[in-house]
Amino acid sequence: MKDQEIKKPQNPETIGQGRRQFMSRAALSGLALGAVACTDKGVGAAPAASAAGSGPAGNAAESGVHIKPGELDTYYGLWSGGHTGDMRVLGLPSGREILRIPVFNPDALVGWGITNESKKIMGTKPDGSLRYTVADTHHTHASYKDGNYDGRYAWVNDKINSRIARIRLDYFVCDKITELPNVQGFHGIFPDKADPVDPKINYTTRVFCGGEFAIPLPNNVGTDDDSKYRSMFTCVDAETMEVRWQVLIDGNCDLVATSYDGKLAATNQYNIEMGAHYEDMMSAERDACLFFNVGRIEAAVKAGKFKTIGDSKVPVVDGTREANKDPKTALTAYVSVPKNPHGVNASPDGKYFICAGKLSPTATVIELAKVLDYFEGKLAEIDKAIVAEVELGLGPLHTAFDGRGNAYTTLFLDSQVVKWNVDAAIKFHAGDKSAKYVVDRLDVQYQPGHLNASHSETKAADGKYLAVGCKFSKDRFLPVGPLHPENEQMIDISGDKMKLMADHPVRGEPHDFIIFKRDIVKPKQIYSHDDFPLAIRDPKESGVFRQGKKVTVKLTSQAPAFSLREFKLKKGDEVTLILTNLDKVEDLTHGFAIPKYNVNFIVNPQETASVTFIADKPGVFWCYCTHFCHALHLEMRTRMIVEA
Amino acid sequence: MKDQEIKKPQNPETIGQGRRQFMSRAALSGLALGAVACTDKGVGAAPAASAAGSGPAGNAAESGVHIKPGELDTYYGLWSGGHTGDMRVLGLPSGREILRIPVFNPDALVGWGITNESKKIMGTKPDGSLRYTVADTHHTHASYKDGNYDGRYAWVNDKINSRIARIRLDYFVCDKITELPNVQGFHGIFPDKADPVDPKINYTTRVFCGGEFAIPLPNNVGTDDDSKYRSMFTCVDAETMEVRWQVLIDGNCDLVATSYDGKLAATNQYNIEMGAHYEDMMSAERDACLFFNVGRIEAAVKAGKFKTIGDSKVPVVDGTREANKDPKTALTAYVSVPKNPHGVNASPDGKYFICAGKLSPTATVIELAKVLDYFEGKLAEIDKAIVAEVELGLGPLHTAFDGRGNAYTTLFLDSQVVKWNVDAAIKFHAGDKSAKYVVDRLDVQYQPGHLNASHSETKAADGKYLAVGCKFSKDRFLPVGPLHPENEQMIDISGDKMKLMADHPVRGEPHDFIIFKRDIVKPKQIYSHDDFPLAIRDPKESGVFRQGKKVTVKLTSQAPAFSLREFKLKKGDEVTLILTNLDKVEDLTHGFAIPKYNVNFIVNPQETASVTFIADKPGVFWCYCTHFCHALHLEMRTRMIVEA
Repeated sequence: MKDQEIKKPQNPETIGQGRRQFMSRAALSGLALGAVACTDKGVGAAPAASAAGSGPAGNAAESGVHIKPGELDTYYGLWSGGHTGDMRVLGLPSGREILRIPVFNPDALVGWGITNESKKIMGTKPDGSLRYTVADTHHTHASYKDGNYDGRYAWVNDKINSRIARIRLDYFVCDKITELPNVQGFHGIFPDKADPVDPKINYTTRVFCGGEFAIPLPNNVGTDDDSKYRSMFTCVDAETMEVRWQVLIDGNCDLVATSYDGKLAATNQYNIEMGAHYEDMMSAERDACLFFNVGRIEAAVKAGKFKTIGDSKVPVVDGTREANKDPKTALTAYVSVPKNPHGVNASPDGKYFICAGKLSPTATVIELAKVLDYFEGKLAEIDKAIVAEVELGLGPLHTAFDGRGNAYTTLFLDSQVVKWNVDAAIKFHAGDKSAKYVVDRLDVQYQPGHLNASHSETKAADGKYLAVGCKFSKDRFLPVGPLHPENEQMIDISGDKMKLMADHPVRGEPHDFIIFKRDIVKPKQIYSHDDFPLAIRDPKESGVFRQGKKVTVKLTSQAPAFSLREFKLKKGDEVTLILTNLDKVEDLTHGFAIPKYNVNFIVNPQETASVTFIADKPGVFWCYCTHFCHALHLEMRTRMIVEA
Repeated sequence: MKDQEIKKPQNPETIGQGRRQFMSRAALSGLALGAVACTDKGVGAAPAASAAGSGPAGNAAESGVHIKPGELDTYYGLWSGGHTGDMRVLGLPSGREILRIPVFNPDALVGWGITNESKKIMGTKPDGSLRYTVADTHHTHASYKDGNYDGRYAWVNDKINSRIARIRLDYFVCDKITELPNVQGFHGIFPDKADPVDPKINYTTRVFCGGEFAIPLPNNVGTDDDSKYRSMFTCVDAETMEVRWQVLIDGNCDLVATSYDGKLAATNQYNIEMGAHYEDMMSAERDACLFFNVGRIEAAVKAGKFKTIGDSKVPVVDGTREANKDPKTALTAYVSVPKNPHGVNASPDGKYFICAGKLSPTATVIELAKVLDYFEGKLAEIDKAIVAEVELGLGPLHTAFDGRGNAYTTLFLDSQVVKWNVDAAIKFHAGDKSAKYVVDRLDVQYQPGHLNASHSETKAADGKYLAVGCKFSKDRFLPVGPLHPENEQMIDISGDKMKLMADHPVRGEPHDFIIFKRDIVKPKQIYSHDDFPLAIRDPKESGVFRQGKKVTVKLTSQAPAFSLREFKLKKGDEVTLILTNLDKVEDLTHGFAIPKYNVNFIVNPQETASVTFIADKPGVFWCYCTHFCHALHLEMRTRMIVEA
């Protein structure tokens, strides 16, 4: 921020007001952490519940997930792919993976990162090579209308390189990737559900992004003075995918939630200390859930009350505690929550955001109406918006909902999912100690991270299926060497008791996911030539077109042949090869590989793709169809002849 | 071949001797091909069978594949990954994918193609970047002992760039990759099962590789004169992974099979015409199954009867028809089989190789004892080794076995698996028209390619499970846009009738696979420091070690911290970062990402990995653990500070 002095909050330990029990550093180090299953269920266990989960087989439902051959699943799941940098599309309840959508990393099946079209979306260096080939996708969420998914878009983030990508849910492809400026460790994302000002805009137009790591701003100085480091909260336009604005904050951002009325977004902060070492990050007694007043922020931007940082032209408003002391003008409000929270989730009734404690055995329920009251000067202290803070068990991380008033929270250390009733928790917190808010517990295998239920964070939450992403599988699958899969478990939550239905091994390490009914999306299964400016609509347009050393090769495919039997090049030519698949039959995809030239990509029905390369090796190169298409698929080839 | 004149076989149409029915070009173009389901079952249907398969639900077995949560599968499957260039490890009968082993292509989870160790295996260009980032893996087979799998190694090929890779089945990792010289379109592979000469060597020491595309030798001339093009059959040493020898042949190689006594290998040839266009490849009336006399070839190499090609030092012997007319000295023998065969498989009783016809509705059974007789001058014509050539249905491709005398062949055009009895087929061929060799038929969905049964091509074939890789899934799964998954189906073959148990969607496009009992392998789940020369055995060895601009950073990981809290570099440093995971708990893997530096990799328990990069961007870069390890995983970081 140009000429702006960056200050850290003073005495973070004193900021928190409530002081409930939390897990002390000593207690934490005494626990069996990491891969060792925690069996010490006494500490921090909720008072009104006993462990209901018995052995896995005892809870196994025999039916439900077992879709017969030829039957279709009834729900879709969109899963972040983890380090593969893609999005996974599952059918549920079977848990079958139907598609991986390449996003941030190259994908050698599709030719993602190979074709000119995909390289343009992914981003390249000046020499034309890909800017990045690694990613760490964490969270995925889809666009809303009227409080439910509308099937237009989904988004997924890359934590390593601070990128956000959009997936079109008509073709199930990534069409835009944006790298956030001034952000490192971009973690949580959530689309808004409505406009904060215009009630006619009852659908997603913004995506909010949490920046986790504090860095120098701009980050071009190798300083170890961490008092100069800061984090950012970012708003991206859902349509243009351009960055609209950023908010400079105290502390950091982890996950993100948004309200149904569009007025509020929030991020949980596990490091209000802005510590550089993990013990510093645990030093404060409480952390925060940071609320953003979206309407006011946009008004401030419109009024020019912003700065810019380094080369970035993105407006940055000031969301620090110091600059937002007056509730009536504040852009932000910091609600105190138990230490190192992980996860903030919006209940489907629109009333609450729930923060899970991670290092505290509690969940904190924050009433949104009271947060709005605070911004209007009607609530004396922002922490009065907390309507419950109840113990659930050890290591609470994320919360899902069933639409029947119940919440489901993963307990990382306890290796459990706890089902609890939000209204009962509020009553208990208000003093009614007879309110039994814990409804059920189920052991999961092992150390669960995210969980999500069908339509959980929508107004259409239907309480049917719950998926749990367990970070350790240990002994649940056949051994395959040192790298274990994770274990994603499917749970039936339609009854009073949770029922474990299936274990699914999964390649590390997907994080978040959403589950929705299959009628939400209407995918198209064949492309249109109009989607591709380079489309070759007639095989007669095929040929080799030379302008000096620049050569364009135009080809079409129709099983079992390419339109050119061979094409001749000269060593040193800069070749752009364009291939249109003229086959119109659903599922009739062709591939195109050039041996030794590191080229392989597919063209789906009616799709066009292009590659550009230097013909630097003389010889004969049989370009062949790599995607089984026909009884004469093996015979489907064209010869690239490069003359010396 | 230096100074050797390359001649194509004369008049390939006249080579074939038997002239049974085959599918004419006209009939082929009249059929509904490709993605359109073929319903014309009358043409070429086997005389003694009616279609037994009804609708999918009618054949669905309700149990068997549905492993309860917490139960282990009883079989492993090793699957070629297709364009993802990896090997998939499945648990069966559930069909769950437990691991993907990165091989030919980069893998951003493991850091394959990112770490120095993996780049060395994959192969780099002079500038240090990867030579290839695309692949097309087709076939996978494992090492043998006493005619059964011994759990040492598996191999997989890359067709695009003619590479063969070995997988260690103790750690389930790839440890060697070899690029074959003088070969384009490397397709089939098969390990030998014994030495042809030394009976004490009753295990795999060679892997045979089929070269599919004919090219100029050496391939450095861009000529369109295809009379100069030739194909090669290659032998790779199973231990050193060096190429032992090659055989120059007439025609091309497709799939490969090996005999149990080690004396014979064979490849089916679909293009004895050596045609460049698909209609030329179909012009001969029969093609061939080409046998190699392994002992004689190695004796010829030992005797110096070979040439070399171009820069390659690999001995090349002459396996052409012209040079091998005398059976008593011949290195090769060309058995005539119906046109465009696809697939050659060895029966578990050790007696037969079976070629499937693809464009002919037949399978050809070749008796190995008779082939050996031919090489000893005891059989007048090599085609007398054919003991059956029977009709099965349209588009036969690959054959598996149950150890009870039955073969199972995929019918690509009929979308069926046909179960047939080999002895009955031989009787039928010998004239006993009452011999009913077709036992059962099952519709599969749709257009099956490879299939394989548990221990199928071993002496331990147990006839329990059959997996079928269907190339088109069409309507079998929820729609996910233009790119459909393939459909891998699990079939119970333990009874008289085949029973379809499950549909599994799979990312395109795996080809081949093997299935074996879980006790065959004994995977290790923790590495040893001795496996890694760079291992840092004590956190005290950590630090930044500078020699001019070359800097070595040594780090260890133990949840939830790296041994260095930060490390400082100067802009322009060439940095080698070495990380050893000191955690010993099974499944406790850490990741290491450097934002904006395109670095991400994992270290499994007790593993060491290193990366080398130029510190070209000043600033603060939070290197964080990307693999969930601990309740304080999010807090597990180290700071890389690059001073300008």
